[in-house]
Amino acid sequence: MNSSHTASEGVSPPEPLQDDITAQWMLDPEIVFLNHGCFGARPRSVLEAQIHRRHEFEASPIEYLDRHRDGLIQQARTRLGGFLKASVDNLAFVTNATAGINAVLRSTQFDPGDEILTTTHVYNAVRRTLELVARERGATFREVPVPFPLHSSAQIMDAIHAALTARTRMLIVDHVTSPTAVVFPIKQLIALCEQQDIAVLVDGAHAPGMLDVDIEALNPSWYAGNLHKWVSAPPGAAFLWARPDRQLGIHPPVISHFMDEGFVAEFNWQGTRDISPWLCVDEALSYFERFSWKAVRGHNHELATWVQQLWTQRWGVPPTTPLDGSMIGSMTTVALPEIPPRYEEPMQLQRELWDRWQIEVPIIDWNGRWWIRASCQIYNRPQQYELVADAITELLF
Amino acid sequence: MNSSHTASEGVSPPEPLQDDITAQWMLDPEIVFLNHGCFGARPRSVLEAQIHRRHEFEASPIEYLDRHRDGLIQQARTRLGGFLKASVDNLAFVTNATAGINAVLRSTQFDPGDEILTTTHVYNAVRRTLELVARERGATFREVPVPFPLHSSAQIMDAIHAALTARTRMLIVDHVTSPTAVVFPIKQLIALCEQQDIAVLVDGAHAPGMLDVDIEALNPSWYAGNLHKWVSAPPGAAFLWARPDRQLGIHPPVISHFMDEGFVAEFNWQGTRDISPWLCVDEALSYFERFSWKAVRGHNHELATWVQQLWTQRWGVPPTTPLDGSMIGSMTTVALPEIPPRYEEPMQLQRELWDRWQIEVPIIDWNGRWWIRASCQIYNRPQQYELVADAITELLF
Repeated sequence: MNSSHTASEGVSPPEPLQDDITAQWMLDPEIVFLNHGCFGARPRSVLEAQIHRRHEFEASPIEYLDRHRDGLIQQARTRLGGFLKASVDNLAFVTNATAGINAVLRSTQFDPGDEILTTTHVYNAVRRTLELVARERGATFREVPVPFPLHSSAQIMDAIHAALTARTRMLIVDHVTSPTAVVFPIKQLIALCEQQDIAVLVDGAHAPGMLDVDIEALNPSWYAGNLHKWVSAPPGAAFLWARPDRQLGIHPPVISHFMDEGFVAEFNWQGTRDISPWLCVDEALSYFERFSWKAVRGHNHELATWVQQLWTQRWGVPPTTPLDGSMIGSMTTVALPEIPPRYEEPMQLQRELWDRWQIEVPIIDWNGRWWIRASCQIYNRPQQYELVADAITELLF
Repeated sequence: MNSSHTASEGVSPPEPLQDDITAQWMLDPEIVFLNHGCFGARPRSVLEAQIHRRHEFEASPIEYLDRHRDGLIQQARTRLGGFLKASVDNLAFVTNATAGINAVLRSTQFDPGDEILTTTHVYNAVRRTLELVARERGATFREVPVPFPLHSSAQIMDAIHAALTARTRMLIVDHVTSPTAVVFPIKQLIALCEQQDIAVLVDGAHAPGMLDVDIEALNPSWYAGNLHKWVSAPPGAAFLWARPDRQLGIHPPVISHFMDEGFVAEFNWQGTRDISPWLCVDEALSYFERFSWKAVRGHNHELATWVQQLWTQRWGVPPTTPLDGSMIGSMTTVALPEIPPRYEEPMQLQRELWDRWQIEVPIIDWNGRWWIRASCQIYNRPQQYELVADAITELLF
């Protein structure tokens, strides 16, 4: 199949970082797993590290989770802080990015008439949280329409800039959007909002491990990120970063013993729970460091750029973002061709790809059209995306 | 040491349910673990089941956590419902009991002037949550003094009955108290409050597996319980039960995709997380069923009753509850003798027991006095509590 790798004009797919890499991962080798962006996947070494941690806890539960807890979490936060270029004092663990976003939104005392702004590319779980918070506080919640397909970041800036008003209290904005897989210009968006004294909560669910994230340089009000996606830590590993002037009064989703005793102390203890996902971020980072993060990000981005070209050209659909890859990371969302009427909802098409070819890829109904989103991780190979190109051609043309 | 088992008047310690039982548990055999009531402990079979679940998830993450999630959780809820005599439709999983209590309290729209009532035996994390909720909503939060030592359940009823007012909106009450290990008469308390249209939230953190819990017969407004303690499920396994007329508007600590789509749907998805603790409640229940729950509860209660007599008589301290065991389950809190001035805080004494004898037992500063709380699980043996009796005698007399 190698000859077909150059089927798309312009770029070639990247060489694998290592030949036998898939054996290092826990995924069933029989499935064509192109949805790393959803729950991630784990190298074997990460689950092994987690099992070791679980044994340590079980041998002496109080010693481990009571007397050693803060020290263990401090080590893990320090390791993560090095990766995110974030001060350890501003960094706390949560279960998932949505939990971090919930913590900020449900801790903030919005007044009636305050406006909370996001974009139409918002993650649905965050949308629902915004609806609840606005309803409870009498605040207004508005989604700024950001076009898609997009040909430049300026379109995103312009749309959001035009939407800010004197009543806008907070902007919730994705670093990398979920349905559309676009890298938003958050550095500029943060600067714009800061000028107008508008707090910015970044939903970085997909960014760590996909982009070179430097949180302190971005300096938003808050940044929530997942570690189970592109860092391949166990499910349950995620973080909330809060700028020092935005930490007071931010409570975790579960209030417990250390309420009002400081950002880190409060998040370190959210009731009895398994902290092993947090402690295994270390091993997940170590796994990727063997290849170097630059090589990992480079491989995944080149592959995503190639996939976007391949699918766009094979199906003759409009490009969703510039085909040079300048607005994507290691995921790409591509428009599907016209959908035959026998598919009434996206899950039917997704299910058919799974049942017939064991292809795991999300089909997304968004903004009046169906889309397909490819994730590219170091265990993925060009042939897998060519299989999708063929399968979609067979099903939809 | 067997002869000393009858040192305390009245009762003898129970026979072990099985001779080599400790080998079935993951605890380090070198430690004297008398604090099951804190984070619990796990039989080996439970962690093995959890590792199996983790492998299943990792082999096909979307298949497992997206397409199979509701079915898997439904099975687990059904199994738990059988154990708690609770309708599966009223039962949802959370991470810990505090999370369940947070869900109820932070979802309830208290008005200024509303009074939220609990007792002085309340768990501290719940106290802090109540403080926050009262502060945010302008409600009043009050702790009813319930005496301790106690000689009858009527004292508890009388104290709480006298404290109810026309402004009392909700009573938060422990099924088994944490610092004092008393079984509260919650059936009567629930009936009393229902007559006066006061909602009752039961903190059942310690009850499932310790007492024969029949939630639908108790029929409170809500009941939150832990499964990592006396059911020995993995950390992260706990539940919230809500009466059908008290489910509307109760949101989990993390709002996500299914907000407003029903109690169970909303709690089933609290963002990406490891659901294996919930799915392993099955194996934890199966482990204890080999002995029968009646035998397990009987053993643990008899042991706790014997320990209470042993320590009370050896140290010459006032009994905290009737020495016939009628107000305790499988834990007992006993008063410590007068504390020498070289101990400035309880952790110093607790630490000395750990460092010198590898005894893991909580020393509690509560209501102006120091107490020691013994937990009794099927892996514990009378000699372990005799060692404590001797160690405390050596340190404090």
